[in-house]
Amino acid sequence: MSTETTLLARRQRALGRHSPLMYDTPLHLVRGEGVWVEDVDGRRYLDAYNNVPHVGHCHPHVVDAICRQAATLNIHTRYLHDNVVQYAERLTATFDPSLSVAMFTCTGTEANELALRIARFVSGGTGVIVSNFSYHGNSAALAAVTTGLPAHEALAPHARAVPIPDLNHWDGDPDQLALEYANGVLEAIRSLKAAGIKPAAILCDTTFSTEGLPRVPNGFLEQAVAHVREAGGLFIADEVQGGLGRTGDHMWAHQAYGVVPDLVTLGKPLGNGHPHAGVITRPDLLDIFASSALYFNTFAGNPVSAAAGLAVLDVMEREKLMQNAKAVGKYLQQGLARLSRKHALIGSVRGSGLFFGLELLRGAGKPASEETKRLVNAMRDRGILINRIGPHDNVLKMRPPMPFSRANAELLLSTLDDALTSL
Amino acid sequence: MSTETTLLARRQRALGRHSPLMYDTPLHLVRGEGVWVEDVDGRRYLDAYNNVPHVGHCHPHVVDAICRQAATLNIHTRYLHDNVVQYAERLTATFDPSLSVAMFTCTGTEANELALRIARFVSGGTGVIVSNFSYHGNSAALAAVTTGLPAHEALAPHARAVPIPDLNHWDGDPDQLALEYANGVLEAIRSLKAAGIKPAAILCDTTFSTEGLPRVPNGFLEQAVAHVREAGGLFIADEVQGGLGRTGDHMWAHQAYGVVPDLVTLGKPLGNGHPHAGVITRPDLLDIFASSALYFNTFAGNPVSAAAGLAVLDVMEREKLMQNAKAVGKYLQQGLARLSRKHALIGSVRGSGLFFGLELLRGAGKPASEETKRLVNAMRDRGILINRIGPHDNVLKMRPPMPFSRANAELLLSTLDDALTSL
Repeated sequence: MSTETTLLARRQRALGRHSPLMYDTPLHLVRGEGVWVEDVDGRRYLDAYNNVPHVGHCHPHVVDAICRQAATLNIHTRYLHDNVVQYAERLTATFDPSLSVAMFTCTGTEANELALRIARFVSGGTGVIVSNFSYHGNSAALAAVTTGLPAHEALAPHARAVPIPDLNHWDGDPDQLALEYANGVLEAIRSLKAAGIKPAAILCDTTFSTEGLPRVPNGFLEQAVAHVREAGGLFIADEVQGGLGRTGDHMWAHQAYGVVPDLVTLGKPLGNGHPHAGVITRPDLLDIFASSALYFNTFAGNPVSAAAGLAVLDVMEREKLMQNAKAVGKYLQQGLARLSRKHALIGSVRGSGLFFGLELLRGAGKPASEETKRLVNAMRDRGILINRIGPHDNVLKMRPPMPFSRANAELLLSTLDDALTSL
Repeated sequence: MSTETTLLARRQRALGRHSPLMYDTPLHLVRGEGVWVEDVDGRRYLDAYNNVPHVGHCHPHVVDAICRQAATLNIHTRYLHDNVVQYAERLTATFDPSLSVAMFTCTGTEANELALRIARFVSGGTGVIVSNFSYHGNSAALAAVTTGLPAHEALAPHARAVPIPDLNHWDGDPDQLALEYANGVLEAIRSLKAAGIKPAAILCDTTFSTEGLPRVPNGFLEQAVAHVREAGGLFIADEVQGGLGRTGDHMWAHQAYGVVPDLVTLGKPLGNGHPHAGVITRPDLLDIFASSALYFNTFAGNPVSAAAGLAVLDVMEREKLMQNAKAVGKYLQQGLARLSRKHALIGSVRGSGLFFGLELLRGAGKPASEETKRLVNAMRDRGILINRIGPHDNVLKMRPPMPFSRANAELLLSTLDDALTSL
């Protein structure tokens, strides 16, 4: 039995045989640096998938900040400490001025949990509107509003799922599409009300990533949120996956829309791998919540987590990573468009900045799910890590560390070209 | 305005004015080492309160493990990696052989959330039985079963709270007390059933720490769990606070009882401050859950979290910290008993190992809540950190890092003596 088989067998025994693994033959990574990872046999892969190592795998500035603070003091936030205050100030400064307070958690799940709890306290309602193919976390309350997992549980009676408009599959007037789908939200509110349920919030990932990165028409989200607010509910923007400059034009994806959220949830990239997440909101909302609930999280916002978060913000600024996402993202969009003219399998090019995708369709617009899977594996064979998303698993998901360069983009594009040709 | 006032004002602005802080004048800590912490003015405090820095503040072996791994690779567990497998194997080896699989999370809240979700899938029930003064986490599902917070929300319709027996306030036959309180659990089950609710689990901290460390008679928990199992529910032992050798006699507090849990939840001390937690369970239960639900947690069990967890286990063994907890704990119990004979305010001595307390009572058994608060502050003035717990906040809570020595214990005892005299 090879070492790999032994490790896999041991893993299945110790973590359970259902513990999720990527690829049919799992990858055994041992090292990472910048946009590159290396497996146990010394083979290097260009990482065009992982957004958690936001400023690059094992960035020395972040590692150094974690090491120094972990060697000095690592304790909960019920004592005063500079780091968490400084971090909250720097982080909230990147939001609309109304969103001026930060509450820290350890994971995106905890952030969405807390945001939903706050929305329910503030609104007095319990209803939640989500998109019809979305994922916001692994807790009971979030599993009850999950629509985008292969084996998701039944949607809770207080939840309504709405479709998200996609200009990729619409030839008509974009405003008309926005209006129609916003009316879908209105219908969801009416359906909740008919069941005696007051809406607490509309909760959506403002990059709509699990949904497959649809091209959402201007005005849809603005009208949808207006309907929810009219009914007394709040708008929670989930930035756990797409936030922190990734889309290139804005620090936060929701800033591309003409509506300011009531609550924003953050996660994956915040600590470059260190478990660190949070909720940004308005002080008046937090006051209402805190007047009747006590929230405390032992690890969240501790001096090490805050040091990691501060170091990530440092690197973002020093290395101009949002600007890089914009420039390299533009180059990628052009390259992907060229590929789409060459390969009939490509139905559309999606995303922006360093969160982008390719939709693969067979003839007659049929989702090419099987080919997408083969392409993900073909890219791995060629030394590049990507993945797939969307209701039909037919959208390539590409979301590399932010220092992804033009040269990395060229390699990705030429390898995609080769792999598509080989299918 | 002093620097401290400015930091506090800035904190209230950036984190919200309700963000919890200890002491009337908050402590501003900047450094920690072993069982000692230091504030911004260079004053040192003996830490007899914090259990998160389990093997000692900033233990070099743990810091080194975190630094080395954070500089090498920090990525989710959907690729193969040695650390998480090795860690799961070493951790599960400290449990009953039936509890052979580990699922990792980042916090105790996430661990209890996951355990409850599994219990509900496996049992097909939704009912939860908790103690009538307990805390298991900050998510919606856990807030709905929280009974031990000052401003707790209404108990959910599917939850029942039962009292926990305490030999400290009982002169009769211990078996009689155990039987009576186990019958309370039976009543809770009947009440759930009468409301058409099937029990999913009894969830309890097996040190009963929030409850104030009552002295629970033999047989109570065993009979209570038997009643719950008879009704189709499971037993979740919450070891988030008291686990990992702290009680001195066993690696896990539940091992003091004659019943093996179905699920055990772990948290605070596991990573010595690194956000790391988990659930230990039986493979058959996990299989039932995983056959209909997909669970994944981005940060949990990543190579850095697993490295931190492994290093903590190393130090536990090398420095014989469980044995230390037992020996120093015994010495402390004797010293606390001496204090109780000297100071009329002391109603009872509680706990075991390095999780111990003193119950303070005025005449006629009235909880001395105000005096307990003053004592916590008087101890801080004398350079020792402790806190208080229990339904009446009249039990001193002492839970120091595990390398707490006999000399540390002597200092704690003599300072308690002095502070009690000063009240």
